[in-house]
Amino acid sequence: MTELEKQGSLAKSASRILMTASSTIKDQALMAIADMLENESDLILDSNAKDIALARESGMRESLIDRLMLTKDRIKGIANGVREVAALPDPIGAVEDTVVRPNGLIIGKKTVPLGVIAIIYEARPNVTADAAALCLKSGNAAILRGGKEAFRSNASIMNIMRRAVASAGLPEDCVSLVKDTTRESARELMQLDEYIDVLIPRGGAGLIRSVVENAKVPVIQTGVGNCHVYIDETADIDMGARIIFNAKCQRPSVCNAAETMLVHRSIAQRFLPAAKELLDTKNTEIRGCPETAEILGESVVPATESDWHTEYGDYILAVKVVSGIDEAIEHINRYNTGHSEAIVTNDYSNAQRFLNEVDAAAVYVNASTRFTDGGEFGLGAEIGISTQKMHARGPMGLKQLTSSKYIIYGNGQIR
Amino acid sequence: MTELEKQGSLAKSASRILMTASSTIKDQALMAIADMLENESDLILDSNAKDIALARESGMRESLIDRLMLTKDRIKGIANGVREVAALPDPIGAVEDTVVRPNGLIIGKKTVPLGVIAIIYEARPNVTADAAALCLKSGNAAILRGGKEAFRSNASIMNIMRRAVASAGLPEDCVSLVKDTTRESARELMQLDEYIDVLIPRGGAGLIRSVVENAKVPVIQTGVGNCHVYIDETADIDMGARIIFNAKCQRPSVCNAAETMLVHRSIAQRFLPAAKELLDTKNTEIRGCPETAEILGESVVPATESDWHTEYGDYILAVKVVSGIDEAIEHINRYNTGHSEAIVTNDYSNAQRFLNEVDAAAVYVNASTRFTDGGEFGLGAEIGISTQKMHARGPMGLKQLTSSKYIIYGNGQIR
Repeated sequence: MTELEKQGSLAKSASRILMTASSTIKDQALMAIADMLENESDLILDSNAKDIALARESGMRESLIDRLMLTKDRIKGIANGVREVAALPDPIGAVEDTVVRPNGLIIGKKTVPLGVIAIIYEARPNVTADAAALCLKSGNAAILRGGKEAFRSNASIMNIMRRAVASAGLPEDCVSLVKDTTRESARELMQLDEYIDVLIPRGGAGLIRSVVENAKVPVIQTGVGNCHVYIDETADIDMGARIIFNAKCQRPSVCNAAETMLVHRSIAQRFLPAAKELLDTKNTEIRGCPETAEILGESVVPATESDWHTEYGDYILAVKVVSGIDEAIEHINRYNTGHSEAIVTNDYSNAQRFLNEVDAAAVYVNASTRFTDGGEFGLGAEIGISTQKMHARGPMGLKQLTSSKYIIYGNGQIR
Repeated sequence: MTELEKQGSLAKSASRILMTASSTIKDQALMAIADMLENESDLILDSNAKDIALARESGMRESLIDRLMLTKDRIKGIANGVREVAALPDPIGAVEDTVVRPNGLIIGKKTVPLGVIAIIYEARPNVTADAAALCLKSGNAAILRGGKEAFRSNASIMNIMRRAVASAGLPEDCVSLVKDTTRESARELMQLDEYIDVLIPRGGAGLIRSVVENAKVPVIQTGVGNCHVYIDETADIDMGARIIFNAKCQRPSVCNAAETMLVHRSIAQRFLPAAKELLDTKNTEIRGCPETAEILGESVVPATESDWHTEYGDYILAVKVVSGIDEAIEHINRYNTGHSEAIVTNDYSNAQRFLNEVDAAAVYVNASTRFTDGGEFGLGAEIGISTQKMHARGPMGLKQLTSSKYIIYGNGQIR
């Protein structure tokens, strides 16, 4: 048995106990995690300081170092996040759709945990506690594999969480961290279908692609967002400009930020300069089709085919002038990644068509794509945003970390 | 582009239209399929006769030939099955869980089709019409790959269905058959994630394993059933014997048939002879642990480790005497395939423990495992029985062939 197989086997055994643990015990474990993370924050900060020092040595950009860095306040924020998860209703155990069949069988559908959830994620150490808390609350054992840059911080947080879980009377293997942060360990994790029920990769297109190609474990794809905003002929110019500016620039690094703007030809002449004025305040680079360049002038970088595919994650926006809603929908359904898409319009039929025909997890009329988020949707917390159609689509809360099983009460029925 | 890529691309385009087709049109297509299958049954019977002749030449067993064979009556049955699917409520379009957020956004979750569903199945030509009907009704394009033994029959049924679909005004590529029935085509299908949204393999453990190892397309595993019946200390002897006899012998080739019986030590002496009496009426071979052999005598074949893993699909039953419910649950959770599991007991706590702790799609108290079936559960029709935890678990009806998307109505909201 490899190290990872052992870890998988321990997680599976722990999950059998966690599967039937009461809400009270699970919440006690979560509250213990929150308290101990705060009480032992010095330990975490020590480990984090080492991660930061190494990151600086290796020349990591300051914006990334900021994502890696923990402070007393940030740890308090993480602990409070865990407390909020504890306060959510337990998704497990409800029996739905109970029917009594003509032969007397009573058949109900019970919400149960998935089992063991593995999550592959990047540098941010807060994910370690967030993800573990959501898995625990939903009765799932968690195997976490964070990025190597945050390894010391993650290990310190995990060490505390395992002690907290044990103090509440649950097996410490309900949560564990993969110690090997090489690509090989990620790959091995994807193949461990004997022990892992679901794998959630949180990261860029490269990670997702590798998982799709290599995973034997069932996967929920998350977080790749090539999102579009389409400005229709009847759009309110101000509203459209504010929405694209928000969708692109409020936080360009996240998956629900817009990457391409499509503009109806008959409004382009008036709309594009208004949008550019706002986008310019953030020095946003515009990569445009020839018509866009003609209207906005030489600051426009000519767009190539690859621009329509690209999730920039930066202050760069691809812009294309289109002939109308048909071309807009066709373009979006061709290039999008199934995340979030918006139309700005005052035309009733076009709004309905966009909602019906655009194939994505979240489709908006007259609002920014930036709202695709568990908190904004009212789910309480989220473990990621699914861009696939199976199992879960869009922001994934506790309910999306569950499965079901049929329970059947008989009194001797045979066929 | 390969043949299969072309077929995938055509199915994807067709699915965009089918996605937003009204219930009326979909039902018209289904009724046209049913009528044309009946009216043109001579064409199907001609093709089927050729399949049968080839199967006989190649020495296929008569029981398999029977599964392959069509008659006027069987075609009528298939057509009526399609009509029953047409009569079910349309699962698509309902908007659930609509909320109005504090910022005024109206967010609803709309039921939508998955897109393109590929199904790999074996020799029975009735599946071709059943599966296509369920996919059509749920707004999904279907790419079907049946076994080579039924190819002529399947092609004839598909030809009729495509004309019927077109006659209702839908693209004929809403349904199509893979013309290449080699293993390579199955493998290529598993990789076509650009066009296929979900792959449902219906077949034995070998096919499922190959799909898990090779698929890039998201998969719903179905139909592998290593099912158990546990006879607890307080079981009613007669009820237990009738249930295991039914679960094993009523139709041993299907996935919800029982393969292993576990018997509490303190009831084994009385129970095993009673069960054997019924099982003997079907000449059922018993592969037992040493205690079973001691009680039932030399007709018992000694069980080996591999027997606990095996789905016989035949009149063979593995039998093990256990020390109680703990050992029974442990054995089941170790060897089962997540399909259907039953306890026969009159002990309240043990019944509840079995329902809670056994990890399977369907868990029974005092009833035969044979009830795990879409019709028996009241789902109307089924496309297979999922043995995985993601997306769907247990019998899959129309609802399980859908996904959702968030639709959001705004009036200029930004973050």
